Amino acid sequence: MKKPKTLGEREIIKIIQNQLDRMPKMPIPFGDDVAACDLGNNELAVLKTDMLVGKTDVPKTMSLWQAARKAVVMNISDFAAKGVKPQALMVSLGLPRGLTKKDIEEIGKGLNTGAREYDAYIIGGDTGEASDLIISITVFGAAKKENIMLRNGAKPGDIVAVTGLFGKTAAGLKILTEDLQMPKKTRENLINSVLMPHARLKEGLALGRTMAVTAAIDSSDGLAWSLHEIAKASHVGFVINKVPTDKQAQKFAESNKLDPTELTLYGGEEYELVLTIKQKNLQKAKKATADTGCRLLPIGRVTKEKQININFNEKTRVIKAKGYEHFRTDMKNSKVSI
Amino acid sequence: MKKPKTLGEREIIKIIQNQLDRMPKMPIPFGDDVAACDLGNNELAVLKTDMLVGKTDVPKTMSLWQAARKAVVMNISDFAAKGVKPQALMVSLGLPRGLTKKDIEEIGKGLNTGAREYDAYIIGGDTGEASDLIISITVFGAAKKENIMLRNGAKPGDIVAVTGLFGKTAAGLKILTEDLQMPKKTRENLINSVLMPHARLKEGLALGRTMAVTAAIDSSDGLAWSLHEIAKASHVGFVINKVPTDKQAQKFAESNKLDPTELTLYGGEEYELVLTIKQKNLQKAKKATADTGCRLLPIGRVTKEKQININFNEKTRVIKAKGYEHFRTDMKNSKVSI
Repeated sequence: MKKPKTLGEREIIKIIQNQLDRMPKMPIPFGDDVAACDLGNNELAVLKTDMLVGKTDVPKTMSLWQAARKAVVMNISDFAAKGVKPQALMVSLGLPRGLTKKDIEEIGKGLNTGAREYDAYIIGGDTGEASDLIISITVFGAAKKENIMLRNGAKPGDIVAVTGLFGKTAAGLKILTEDLQMPKKTRENLINSVLMPHARLKEGLALGRTMAVTAAIDSSDGLAWSLHEIAKASHVGFVINKVPTDKQAQKFAESNKLDPTELTLYGGEEYELVLTIKQKNLQKAKKATADTGCRLLPIGRVTKEKQININFNEKTRVIKAKGYEHFRTDMKNSKVSI
Repeated sequence: MKKPKTLGEREIIKIIQNQLDRMPKMPIPFGDDVAACDLGNNELAVLKTDMLVGKTDVPKTMSLWQAARKAVVMNISDFAAKGVKPQALMVSLGLPRGLTKKDIEEIGKGLNTGAREYDAYIIGGDTGEASDLIISITVFGAAKKENIMLRNGAKPGDIVAVTGLFGKTAAGLKILTEDLQMPKKTRENLINSVLMPHARLKEGLALGRTMAVTAAIDSSDGLAWSLHEIAKASHVGFVINKVPTDKQAQKFAESNKLDPTELTLYGGEEYELVLTIKQKNLQKAKKATADTGCRLLPIGRVTKEKQININFNEKTRVIKAKGYEHFRTDMKNSKVSI
């Protein structure tokens, strides 16, 4: 039998999944970012559960208000990636003894702010005593089946595109955990990207309506990890021709002698959307995204060959499947679902 | 400001609720056992979240399989009390380091068994590392608005009825925690009532369809607590004329010089339904319950006066609002919802 320490989050989920009877005609397969239940009339009840745990998901300078808001945002981001409008949220709170009334108010306010930013409401929940701060959120929304963007539809020739630039949260986390120095304004912006994440909901909803997207995921586990997840689910590979590095992250990397490409690819807690789009529909997708005030940035192509490579400075590098996994310390940030 | 130790689960939920914007036209108010979202066409998406925490909800002799199954059953029981069929469940697992592959398999099997016993499926979830074992479940089901039994419809003159006899789990918990002695067979039955709870789902669904029920709740927090919750939500009181004590619980009380009425009223973790029914519809409700193989037992009446009294041995006693509350040790068992 495997010893406990070698069981990673992914393995645990695999073991649990193996014990579960499959719902007949499951509208969305295990392993995508959301689950669903048929409501009839081509409509699905879409559900997502994601758990924030204080000691693994909350940097030390993050307030309770920010942690509660983040717990909501990370769930909403998965709905964004699937093009589903979140309607209502259920909250399960594990609270350590010793929290004050003001602490609890902060948590309540953070939850509400997170939900209202995306036009959703907290409608119920539960609380219990726990050793860690635990905020488990379940999001519900109803959606037409054909508007939902899954992970498994990418086809060779499709364009890979992202909704923003990367590297800021990786830089921000490094500033917070390794106390690296930067000019005040940049430092604040980078830290802020960690403490105040945003989900690309209006972009995801607009893209879902275009029917132009063949596969989608959010980048909460890092750009590299997201590409690997789409590749695995769609049985394809990628050639990336453009490294979408944020300017401030670039500056941070230069000041601290770090590789900006590493920050871009292997960060995490960054809630951009990573999408594959049929070439002929790219303009439509670009327009829909632009209408929400965001720029869709093509960064490469889907390939039949199942490698994920990046062409960079006239060299080809392999993009590794690197991400953090709970229960393991040798990986950096990955969020997985049953 | 109140000091942490005085903040009970109920107060915490009140504080959180006070920070939340209310969803417009919320179909089920805060404080009932489930929450809901309008789906149009008189249909509601019904949701329930309940969290099992190892150290407060799992007696020491309960296996991981039983704990996982119980986490499902306690959620299903709330759907039973509302007359809503559960369709799909999402699971959020907080797992301590050190669990083996076999432990995780047990948890997965327990979750699946619990769901399949009630014809529902686990369709997704999340896992993270936590200091305690935490199993937070969210149940989803769609239901017609008029079939849902709420807490707030009891009217003076209505009959109070229950779906079974009480006291077994209180006795079983006492055997487990205080190591009290009983003949083997009775001892096993009483312990089993704690380790292998059942939700009255088919009874609840049948009763929901009769439209005879004016208010309903499960008795997971004890019969006394359930009566108080309906009384509070419906602005009524009760006169109880019959103490529905289980025979084995009675025997246990006699052998151990305990008050059987105390065991009956102030137990908990007992998943019977407590209902109020219009007098003229009682036969209909009895028949619907009998058709599921269960006996509906009238125990008293709803009163205009807001006390909850029990007539017993020609004396009248007050039924106290006693229940256990997490974060507090001076109360016995209460499960509350946001």
